[in-house]
Amino acid sequence: MFKLVALWSPPKPGDRAAFEAAYINTHAPLARALPNLAALDTILLAEGLEGAPADHHRVAIMSWADKAAFERDGETPQWTALRTDAGQMIERFGVTLHSSMGEDG
Amino acid sequence: MFKLVALWSPPKPGDRAAFEAAYINTHAPLARALPNLAALDTILLAEGLEGAPADHHRVAIMSWADKAAFERDGETPQWTALRTDAGQMIERFGVTLHSSMGEDG
Repeated sequence: MFKLVALWSPPKPGDRAAFEAAYINTHAPLARALPNLAALDTILLAEGLEGAPADHHRVAIMSWADKAAFERDGETPQWTALRTDAGQMIERFGVTLHSSMGEDG
Repeated sequence: MFKLVALWSPPKPGDRAAFEAAYINTHAPLARALPNLAALDTILLAEGLEGAPADHHRVAIMSWADKAAFERDGETPQWTALRTDAGQMIERFGVTLHSSMGEDG
């Protein structure tokens, strides 16, 4: 599988509920709308090890059968909509989003 | 599922092969040896979006049925062995490891 790992930094505490609503009700459904996506796994991070805080608020793992399937999705209006929404979330909530891609292994 | 997301920073290019050997031959098997672990998914990150470099070298997602199962593993000698090996890798390769935990959602 070819995977994209998306790491979201924590929103400010007062923005948390609005971030979660935007993520769950709008952003994740836009990801699931990609025609070639095989799976979307999302994790809500709450804590680090041994009492440390979590470094990120959320991680999403997007899976495609192979890199070609990801690249086909990258040419779709659904991809443009997802990226546009991510940009709006970054701007609205002052968070960072880091996305890295690679293969299982 | 309760999940731990482990993010490894990139080793120096000259250390990459040795890091990979240590990770695949020693570290990942130590993780799989945890008695209550339900799954270990590892991703070798190669690139970011739109030509950017990957922010991390590797991500591992460890899954347990629930937080209690993770906590039981945290009391085992296998957990101590895993954490000790992680510390040795961090020291040997000059990398960072950030671990955050939470639930699917």
